Amino acid sequence: MDISKLISQAQQAKAAFAAGDSSQRNKILKLLVDGLERDREKILAANQADVKQVAGKSDDAFIDRLVLNDQRFDDMVTSVKSIMSLPDILGKIYDSTTQPSGLVIAKMRIPLGIILMIYESRPNVTIDAAALAIKTGNVIILKGGHEVQRTNKALGDVLTSSLKRAGLPAGAVTVLTSQSRLVTKELLKHDEAIDLVIPRGSRQLLEFVQANTNIPTLLHLEGNCHVYIDAAANPKMALRVALDAKTQRLGTCNTAESLLIHRDIAEAILPVLASELSNHKIEIRGDEAVCRIVKQAVPASEGDWSQEYLGPTISVKVVDSLAAATTHINKYGSGHTDSIVTDDASAAERFLRQVNSASVMHNTSTRLADGYEFGLGAEIGTSTGKLHARGPVGQAGLTTYKWIVKSRGLTKSGILGKE
Amino acid sequence: MDISKLISQAQQAKAAFAAGDSSQRNKILKLLVDGLERDREKILAANQADVKQVAGKSDDAFIDRLVLNDQRFDDMVTSVKSIMSLPDILGKIYDSTTQPSGLVIAKMRIPLGIILMIYESRPNVTIDAAALAIKTGNVIILKGGHEVQRTNKALGDVLTSSLKRAGLPAGAVTVLTSQSRLVTKELLKHDEAIDLVIPRGSRQLLEFVQANTNIPTLLHLEGNCHVYIDAAANPKMALRVALDAKTQRLGTCNTAESLLIHRDIAEAILPVLASELSNHKIEIRGDEAVCRIVKQAVPASEGDWSQEYLGPTISVKVVDSLAAATTHINKYGSGHTDSIVTDDASAAERFLRQVNSASVMHNTSTRLADGYEFGLGAEIGTSTGKLHARGPVGQAGLTTYKWIVKSRGLTKSGILGKE
Repeated sequence: MDISKLISQAQQAKAAFAAGDSSQRNKILKLLVDGLERDREKILAANQADVKQVAGKSDDAFIDRLVLNDQRFDDMVTSVKSIMSLPDILGKIYDSTTQPSGLVIAKMRIPLGIILMIYESRPNVTIDAAALAIKTGNVIILKGGHEVQRTNKALGDVLTSSLKRAGLPAGAVTVLTSQSRLVTKELLKHDEAIDLVIPRGSRQLLEFVQANTNIPTLLHLEGNCHVYIDAAANPKMALRVALDAKTQRLGTCNTAESLLIHRDIAEAILPVLASELSNHKIEIRGDEAVCRIVKQAVPASEGDWSQEYLGPTISVKVVDSLAAATTHINKYGSGHTDSIVTDDASAAERFLRQVNSASVMHNTSTRLADGYEFGLGAEIGTSTGKLHARGPVGQAGLTTYKWIVKSRGLTKSGILGKE
Repeated sequence: MDISKLISQAQQAKAAFAAGDSSQRNKILKLLVDGLERDREKILAANQADVKQVAGKSDDAFIDRLVLNDQRFDDMVTSVKSIMSLPDILGKIYDSTTQPSGLVIAKMRIPLGIILMIYESRPNVTIDAAALAIKTGNVIILKGGHEVQRTNKALGDVLTSSLKRAGLPAGAVTVLTSQSRLVTKELLKHDEAIDLVIPRGSRQLLEFVQANTNIPTLLHLEGNCHVYIDAAANPKMALRVALDAKTQRLGTCNTAESLLIHRDIAEAILPVLASELSNHKIEIRGDEAVCRIVKQAVPASEGDWSQEYLGPTISVKVVDSLAAATTHINKYGSGHTDSIVTDDASAAERFLRQVNSASVMHNTSTRLADGYEFGLGAEIGTSTGKLHARGPVGQAGLTTYKWIVKSRGLTKSGILGKE
């Protein structure tokens, strides 16, 4: 793989994007939708080959992340259509002011430039990321996991042909098929060309990226999400929200991994909740209070409170107050998404203010923390960092701005009255 | 210096800020204004001792950056007052939407947390940075240059006493007096506690920071700012803007270091401009066309086009078109601030769209690219990066947001109709 050629192709594509407009970008997305439908069987077959390769060698939650079935394929196509129908934000002028000096100031929204994304498993991520990059006029280099390389190759072919048909250089979206870490390491050196790197995966991947690059990095860490059931919670709603947050899908980063229950409501809720979790074959790791109430609970160790299981296990703790819950979440959570269930509006307000996570929720399942549900059309990932973009990252997170400043000859000396 | 103690004090101060409100933060700023006025003579004397130390050993532009005279002291105090009078943005709810699912989404503005700033020379930076951090509820650790250590010590004393009088832990603003790089290196390891590092100074400083930290870094590189005099420029305005951009102050990052002139207007403008620059003792490094027109011009080398002189030198080049000007700026500029002088609105529009810099200007001196002139009250620096904040960084750049999500028990299963 010739990295400098790859970079120079990306830069050419960047210039081509800059010369184009929103109708061109939407045309690529339309061609992508058509291409995915045309190649559906080919892509699903490639995915089945990928899944077959790991079957029996990995756990169910891991395999579930790889699978592209008909439903998920439909969702992937719907996601591209939804991105296509989003209003275009590029070139938009906002925050305009006229200063007392007469200076007219505004911001203009522009693409970031070239994005490198390194990710694992879920193949719909390839299409979501490429579609969002195209929509926002960004060039993207995608380095997916080796366990779905056949699927990604098939998706990459559709992307390449869509770009070519729309008259854009194929370098606008590169799906890397080489699986060598050396390629990644080499790419990470190009901070003069690449504007953002998004490592979506394990903490080890993030550390590898940080150790090898000066490119600004979008933190994308684990989701140790909490549901806190307050003393004033509606028990039926608490049960519904908690069960959905944990069991609707086990392997996603917005799945709840830990449950906190106020002491006053624990005895009323826990037995029913535990039995429902049992029906879903979820193991409970509980503190002392939980283990007293729930016979089948296993005692939790200190490590359980910061664990992202991504599987059929949940940690459960009884707390004495809302303050104890927010302190626990700020200490052990990963800053991803945390939710309170309560009918007490002031308790909800305190929770929403005091919990420092990217998304804080009231009476809502953590599973709803994603770009699609938040109205972003789709997401390129979930930022657990504080800079630039937090939580689900959609169109806006892939853009930046420049200051547009106009006057009729204003100077510093003039403003100081020394001209 | 006990770094872990410093970090734990910063974390305590962060909690104290979170428990406080805008009236408390403004009270600190009021006490800071009073304290600066009270200690004015002491601070100016400390600054004179600092300046005396380097006199004769450094060039004029460097020394000019250190000096705190009565005028600059007044400006510094005015800046704190101006920050104090800014509307408070913390806790503000914005971008509210209700999704088709019923999910109610909004963002809430919150402080970044703990900021580390490493900077050189200008002592007003200490006060601007501290005041902006206090206004935005951020804890800040300030590591200034050794050449103004006496000044910074005196300013730090005022800050500490202002915080104490307002009932806040002194750890909210730390002005480091130790000059060891080891202290900085040790601080840079604390990415678990520090949310942002701002290295304001040389490229070497930035590289030192990047090599030693995983903390997100606000790029703050040199300003190789351009003024482009278009064929359709008003000659008097062009002269006024270009001279102000270069000569109003030599040692600042928004000073113009390079001048581009359209061929059609070069012979009319250059002789007058050159003679005015001579009056200001500015040396011209010109391309061939410039050297033909201006006798005293020195031939420019390739290196001149990317040079930030911060002194009495300017590079000047004749270009054949607006496209040649924007290409030159995107190639050799530093992405800081670039300005076009023209009476042709469509030429201005093309320049503003095509130049990729953080601030792009029309008929305006580059010297006006700062937080105060842009209405931000003050700035903590100028970002030449693309992520998070670009150009002058004020209140908003020192904050982030969290997503606030509310519903009446919405779940993923419910939305999918599978509950």
